[in-house]
Formats: sequence, C-alpha cells, structure tokens
Amino acid sequence: MGTPEQYLRQNKERYMRELFAFLRIPSISMHSKHREDMRRAAEWLADSLRQAGLEHVALLETEGNPVVYGDWLHAEGKPTVLIYGHYDVQPPDPLAEWASPPFEPEIRGGNLYARGATDDKGQLFIHIKTVEAFLQTEGKLPVNIKFCLEGEEEISSPHLEPLLVQEKERFQADAVVVSDTSFYEQGLPAIHYGLRGICGMQIEVSAAKNDLHSGEFGGGVANPIHELARLIATFHDAEGKVAVNGFYDQVRLLAEEEREQIRKLGFDEEKLKDELGVPAFFGEPGYSFLERTWARPTLEVNAISGGSQDEGLKSIVPAKAWAKVSCRLVPDQNPEQIQELLERHIAEHTPAHVRVKTVRLTAASPYYAAVDNPFMQAGAEAYRAVYNVRPVFTRAGGSIPIMEAFHRLFGCPVVTMGFGLPGENLHAPNEFLHVDNFYNGMLVMADFWRRL
Amino acid sequence: MGTPEQYLRQNKERYMRELFAFLRIPSISMHSKHREDMRRAAEWLADSLRQAGLEHVALLETEGNPVVYGDWLHAEGKPTVLIYGHYDVQPPDPLAEWASPPFEPEIRGGNLYARGATDDKGQLFIHIKTVEAFLQTEGKLPVNIKFCLEGEEEISSPHLEPLLVQEKERFQADAVVVSDTSFYEQGLPAIHYGLRGICGMQIEVSAAKNDLHSGEFGGGVANPIHELARLIATFHDAEGKVAVNGFYDQVRLLAEEEREQIRKLGFDEEKLKDELGVPAFFGEPGYSFLERTWARPTLEVNAISGGSQDEGLKSIVPAKAWAKVSCRLVPDQNPEQIQELLERHIAEHTPAHVRVKTVRLTAASPYYAAVDNPFMQAGAEAYRAVYNVRPVFTRAGGSIPIMEAFHRLFGCPVVTMGFGLPGENLHAPNEFLHVDNFYNGMLVMADFWRRL
Repeated sequence: MGTPEQYLRQNKERYMRELFAFLRIPSISMHSKHREDMRRAAEWLADSLRQAGLEHVALLETEGNPVVYGDWLHAEGKPTVLIYGHYDVQPPDPLAEWASPPFEPEIRGGNLYARGATDDKGQLFIHIKTVEAFLQTEGKLPVNIKFCLEGEEEISSPHLEPLLVQEKERFQADAVVVSDTSFYEQGLPAIHYGLRGICGMQIEVSAAKNDLHSGEFGGGVANPIHELARLIATFHDAEGKVAVNGFYDQVRLLAEEEREQIRKLGFDEEKLKDELGVPAFFGEPGYSFLERTWARPTLEVNAISGGSQDEGLKSIVPAKAWAKVSCRLVPDQNPEQIQELLERHIAEHTPAHVRVKTVRLTAASPYYAAVDNPFMQAGAEAYRAVYNVRPVFTRAGGSIPIMEAFHRLFGCPVVTMGFGLPGENLHAPNEFLHVDNFYNGMLVMADFWRRL
Repeated sequence: MGTPEQYLRQNKERYMRELFAFLRIPSISMHSKHREDMRRAAEWLADSLRQAGLEHVALLETEGNPVVYGDWLHAEGKPTVLIYGHYDVQPPDPLAEWASPPFEPEIRGGNLYARGATDDKGQLFIHIKTVEAFLQTEGKLPVNIKFCLEGEEEISSPHLEPLLVQEKERFQADAVVVSDTSFYEQGLPAIHYGLRGICGMQIEVSAAKNDLHSGEFGGGVANPIHELARLIATFHDAEGKVAVNGFYDQVRLLAEEEREQIRKLGFDEEKLKDELGVPAFFGEPGYSFLERTWARPTLEVNAISGGSQDEGLKSIVPAKAWAKVSCRLVPDQNPEQIQELLERHIAEHTPAHVRVKTVRLTAASPYYAAVDNPFMQAGAEAYRAVYNVRPVFTRAGGSIPIMEAFHRLFGCPVVTMGFGLPGENLHAPNEFLHVDNFYNGMLVMADFWRRL
C-alpha cells in the first residue's frame, strides 16, 4: 500500500484531472444566473469528499448556496481540525484579457490557469486529496477532520455565520485551517495573523426620470455623472488619505515593533512597480506599500457606470449613474460603523439638484490574532519540513470574511496555510496556481496533521 | 386624379405602413455590427425615392455609409430646393425602459413609437411622400427638388462634407430644407436660426496593466476611477460654469434684444421641471433654461465606465476607467479649438501616478443665420396656412452637424422645417412622433413648394 506520500505521488495526474473537472464548473456566486452551477459545484464536492472516504457528507442548506460538510472523527484523543474553504469564484470579466478561457483549465509553464485555480478550488482540493491518501493507505487519519466548504466567500459569506451559530456542535473544533492565502514570495511560505475586513456600498445618483438628449437639455439640467464624480472626489484628500469624517478614529496604530518586522522583510517595491506596470505608487502618506495594504484601511471605488456602455458617443445626459465602493478595514474598525460614516458623508455632499440613494452591500470584520499557539507553530514546522524554510508571520491585505467569526464563535486559533503565490491574478484575468505548490501543499498537510 | 392634398389624404394608411417598414430597419450608425442594416436602409430609401417618381436615384458611396440621392429638375425658372435628412438613428439602449420594442413601431394615443420615428426617419419621409403626391396627381413639382439623405448624422456626419465638396454641382441648390427639429410647443411651429455645434472626446485613465485584487493591492496603487472622478470634478465650478481655461473666450454674448425675445416666449420652467422629474434645475448662473440650452455652451460627460458592469461587488482596483465627453458649442466657438483646450486642461490635471489618453471623437461647428430671406419667410407662411399660426423663430440646443457646412459651401439659406414636438424622447427610450404632425407636415411642404 505504501505511505500517504507515495500514494500522493502515484496519483498526481488523476488529481489534476479531477481538479480540472471542478474548475470547469463556473460557480460564480455573484451572478444569479449561475445559481445552478453553484449547486452543481457543491454536489461535485460532496461526491469528492465521499470518494476520499469522509463520513456524514451532506449539503447543508442555507438561504443562499449550500455549505458542503463531511468529517472523519475516529482519531481518539487527537485534536479536531476544521478545514474551511470556498467553492465559489469571482466573475471572470474582462473575458477578452484571458489567454485561455477562464473555465477551460490549462497548464502552461508549470502554472495551472483557470478562474478559481488558486482562489480557492485548487487550494481546498489539497485537503481532500490528502485525506484520501491517508485513508487509502493507512485506513485512518492522524487527527479528526471536519470540512466546511462554502459557496459564498466572494460575496462576504452572508449565510455562513448563522449556520455556524445554529450548528455550533457540528462545526466545533480545536483549530480552523484555511488554505486561501499566498506565500510571501516563491519559496517562502507565510502564515497570516491579520487580514483586513471589508464593507461595501452601492451609490446611485439620479436627476431626470429618463435619459435626455444632451443638445435639447444639456446645460439646463444636472448631470448625475458629474455629481457622482464630484462626490467621489471628496472621498480622499489630494494626497490619498480617506477624507470621510471619523474614518480613521478606530484604527489601531501600527506598533513600532511591527513596522520594524515589516521593514526587515526587505520588500522590493521597485520590482513590484514594474510587475504591475504602474507609473508610480500612490497611497496614504507616511506608509510603505506593505503597511498600506496590510495595516491601513482603504476606500476604493470598485466600479462606476453611467450613460451608454456601448461603442460610440451617445449624446445624452443620463438619468442616473452609479458606483460601487468598498472599504478594506483594519482592527478595530467596525464595518457597520464605517458604512454609517459613509452614508453621512454622502448625505452631506449631495446637492439639491440630484437625488442620491445608497445600498449597503457587504460587511465583514477584520481579523487579527496572536501567533503563539501550538497549531500555528505546528503549521510553521510543517512548511519548513517540505520547503526547507520557516514561513514568515505576516498580515495580508485581503479578506476572508468568516475568519473573524470562527475566531469569535469557537474561541480557537485559525491557521492560514496558503499555497498561492503573489501575482497569481486573484479576482483578475489569467488567475493561476503554481502546480508544484499544489502537490507540495499535500505533503505539508500530511506533515501538519501528524504533528498535532 | 384630384389634387396632391386629396392624394395625401387618400393614401394615409399606406404611407404609415411604408414608414413602419422603414422604422423596422435598425440603422444604428454608431454600432459597427449594424453596417448591413445601414445599407439596407439606404436601399430601402432609394426604392422609395424611385417609387415617388424621382430621377437619378443613386447611392453615393463614401468611406462610411452611403448617401442616398435623387432629384426632379423639370420646374423651369423655379428655384432648386435640396432636402436634407438622415436615415441613421441613435442606439436604443436602455432597452428595458421601452414600453414597446424600439424597432417594432406601434401607434398609441395618437403617437407613433419607434427609434427614429421623429429623429429623423418619420420627418424625412414627409418630403418623399409629398413628392409622390404631386407627381401622381399633377405629373410635376412646383419647384426643382434634390434629396440628400445621409446615414451618419448621429455620428456627426464625418463623410458628408467631403462628398458635398467633391460633388458640389450635383448638390448645388438655392435653399436647403431640413426637417429634423421640433415645434416650440404643440400647435406652435418653430423655425431655427441657430443650432449648437458639438465636439467630443474619449478620456481613458489607467494605472496597473491588469485589474488588481482590491485586498492585496488596494491602498497601495492608484485607482483610475478615483483619478477620472477627480478630473471630471475639475471640469465645472461649484455653480455649474465650465472651468476649462479659455472655454468661453470665443462665445458670442447673447444680445439684450435676443434675451428679450426669449423672455417673451414665456417659457414655463416649472412645468418642464415636473415633466422631466428633476428635483431642481441646475446650470450656468445668470441664464434661464432656454438661454442655457440655446445660447450657452456645455461640457457634458455622456458616459463613464470602470470596473465590472455586472451584478454584485467585484472587489478590484480596475486597470482603467474611461469617460466620453462632449461639448455643445455656440457661435463663435470652434470645435477643434475647444478640443485643444480640453486636452490641455486634462494634461495639466493628470497626476504622476496614472496615465491619461484622449481621443477626439466628433466635431461640428455651431450654426447661426439671418432670418430675413424669402425661403424662411415662405416656410413661415406655409406653416401658418396649415396650423393657423405664424411660427416662432428661435434657436435650438441640438446640433445638425452638416448645417453649418451647407451654409458655408453653398452660400444659401438653410430652413429648418421640423415636425417634431418637444418631449418626443429623442436619443432616449420611447421616442415617438405625433401622427397628426406627420400628415400635416406633408400639407405644409406642398404649400411651401407652391409659394417658392
């Protein structure tokens, strides 16, 4: 039968074929037309858990997409690890910029290209296949394992926390492990002790009840695009600091010690500048790129729209224009409170000749935890065993909305054991996963479980 | 055989059926996918001219859509009238707001609803059918007639002026008549001595070469939407005056006499405010609504776009954002000069952390002419004969890009004899034409030709 590690090596190609099938399902939680694809992805995952030998596999229904559950709880006296991941993906647009279609996985130059390759289908699949390797060779796992795989991470997990509360016993664990993050750089893994939270809002500015001919009416009525632009221009000061009253009031300042740790990483901003193709960096004065993205909050307009989105110059004064904004939040900011400040700012900056309507879109708290617990330390050792280097403990700029809730509800450590790389185009065209990290990830998890 | 007027009355229903067929062709010049529809519309028109009895009917090829020509030149000793119109239409979006589909004409409450009903298919058809009525009854016309029907008015007629220059003899006339404007109000026709010009520009702001994850990178790189919004916010001052340096330098001031004439019209701003559904009017201080839209220039953002245009909050910092702007111009502004001022303004307001690219989109000069010529006066009398009221001479806020060129190249009067009504939703959803004005327009044209 061999060891789990031998099994993993022998089944590499089949694993990749299976992952391809998973990646082909366009499980885009953001778009309602993919409702059925979401269920298809959930059912595919449940089958995959069963095939791996997990028990009590079930789709737990919510008001949104189902949560896929499965467990194996026969490691008496050993801790229980809850593995969290998500089977939903970001929309693939702009489609024209993909070198290969987003839902037709392709390996090029050692990278697996597909929407969801690294965020998060490829990463969560690592855990399922590691379970399979143990059960197919040794017939048992070194720890107790529960899977919690949701389909709404990319829309801020609106239905997961109520389910965790309702089924607290089912999900209770000694540690939560999440593989939905990235290395600090190729060859150097990272474990995150902090992630930013997020809150969002849609803003719609309107004037006339219909689009108007810009010749007949232009100059005589307000243009909602102009007013939306003026409003957006009030969100930041000239230097890039958020100018919404009270926005920074609850922000925990970066300790000098942490700034020193960040400086020691020796991050190469010039190199990143070239990779991104930006003419210059821009952001809140007084902070480095890593400090800005890890430990400082943002107010970002993610999308804007008004008038005809089609070819040509359609000469109208549009009836309305909208923008979608989101804030990345840091401790101790509260998403609802920030939404309130935003609403107040918008109301104060709305002139009498237009109407403004806001809708809250999403809200998740920032996450921040101590690193001195045995699970995080075991994770670090497992990385070292496979990659021959101890991972760095850092923050990250992204959000995993449910992390703070896991921490709060179960009072247990949440360990990010990511296998992505920086620059893998998360949320952007040409997302990929480094194929070696996919396989090495399984070796890390096998080592990690044995250490617990 | 009866008179032309009797013929017009007897054939009303057939005319409407024919117009329906014309309106069903989605001849949208702005969208390249409608290239074949453009030719189909031109051929349909040419057939219609032949059926009416016109001679030398031809599609004159240009680098864009063909110009439809036809003439009848046997009225010896009589003047020659060139009838200008356009068979292209504006795009119909937003489609969801049409009560009946834009290219399925429908009569409701005495109005004919369809894209192009009033702008300009319905209006140009009036002339063709009046010609038919004369030739089918009297076998001749009271004047010499030439038709010049183009397919690029909605994209500022880029290929018509070169054709007019090249075929000057073919198009030479004693007067140009255009039916592509509106009454001052229901029951009160208007002849326009001034129309605004137009120039346009696309502005694209970019930073990173790809969309970026707003968590990983947000706060650390410039957001093109923010910078585009800031730029747009510099286009006007807080009160609504254009803030581009030099913008008003060439503007001919409204004479006190003309302001007095406008005041005498007793325009009801409150009524329009209710009809448009705007909470308040907004525009350049010191001018009334009619003054602002007839005699003052504008800088209008017609469309803006950045980030995902789809459902949901796609959490990215987009690689780029664009806006399409256009200026309506008044005498003596020059479209190219205004484009230059805009380019300079944009360059001066571009910060180092983004790139800005501009593309000029369209350019047509404003039109302004004296009213004291026999053609305009004959037009006024013809309106009076049918509508029992002398039309008002006014300006209009819209643009007919080629008008100034007709005036300049042929040195002849251009008479706007429009049969639209204000509020017929030009360029907007639910465009319509008042059916009575369609039929009465033919009686006006018959009367007008006899007077010349």
